[in-house]
Amino acid sequence: MYPIRLIVIGRPRLAPVRELETHYQGLLKTFVRLAVVELPEGKGDPPRQLKDEAERIRPHLLSVRCPVLLSAEGPPRASEAFAKWLGARVDRGDSLAFAVGSSHGFDPGLKAEVREHLSLGPMTFPHDLSRVLFLEQLYRAFAILKGTAYHK
Amino acid sequence: MYPIRLIVIGRPRLAPVRELETHYQGLLKTFVRLAVVELPEGKGDPPRQLKDEAERIRPHLLSVRCPVLLSAEGPPRASEAFAKWLGARVDRGDSLAFAVGSSHGFDPGLKAEVREHLSLGPMTFPHDLSRVLFLEQLYRAFAILKGTAYHK
Repeated sequence: MYPIRLIVIGRPRLAPVRELETHYQGLLKTFVRLAVVELPEGKGDPPRQLKDEAERIRPHLLSVRCPVLLSAEGPPRASEAFAKWLGARVDRGDSLAFAVGSSHGFDPGLKAEVREHLSLGPMTFPHDLSRVLFLEQLYRAFAILKGTAYHK
Repeated sequence: MYPIRLIVIGRPRLAPVRELETHYQGLLKTFVRLAVVELPEGKGDPPRQLKDEAERIRPHLLSVRCPVLLSAEGPPRASEAFAKWLGARVDRGDSLAFAVGSSHGFDPGLKAEVREHLSLGPMTFPHDLSRVLFLEQLYRAFAILKGTAYHK
């Protein structure tokens, strides 16, 4: 089973958001061995907080062959295009890790270090909900790659 | 309080999705008088189902000055641009109704009748989750227009 690491900051505040995370993590078990690394939020003003978080994220993210940041700066991709991007990396056997930032996003230094940025689209969603959306897109991508039926 | 109509098809299957709908509908009460019109799913094969649904949607949607369909064909808009678009219509006092389709989207005839299409981005999300995302974006748009602090 393909291993994928998901790095997140803190716990979602809303219970139904946590339940949806669990739901999609459960669905993903058909396709991947998902390891979720939950790191504590950084402290201080936003720049200081993001530096803290970047220090915690780095060892988990930069130790894989293909580290990816979920950020608005990534190229907009349709679900099929994301599936194709993912499939190419899985075929090469690249180790993959995706990081979802906190409410302020990521430290600019970390953003510059990581080449691959993935955007969930031009709209800004709450970062808690972005975790759910990413899990859903990851599940959808594998369903597309495997040709599995999946309810829209 | 500004009235906005939201037309949806069926009930979300997942309980946490229904809870998130309720959560964002509650938040929206600060800004708008939201009327949710929940219509039953159409019957038959997809084209027949969509025709059924279109017939049910039409009287609720086309009776307002500015009817909007949530569909992938809409122009991609950042949250600030959607807020600006919304603000212009609220300032003119246009009556507004938004329709979210079922898993197959909308009948092509209905799509051709309605000028305004709103897209939640290039990725395909489950239509149940799209309802939540739309409510969240509507809340975010009003928070942007009113200058209210809102957690990302």
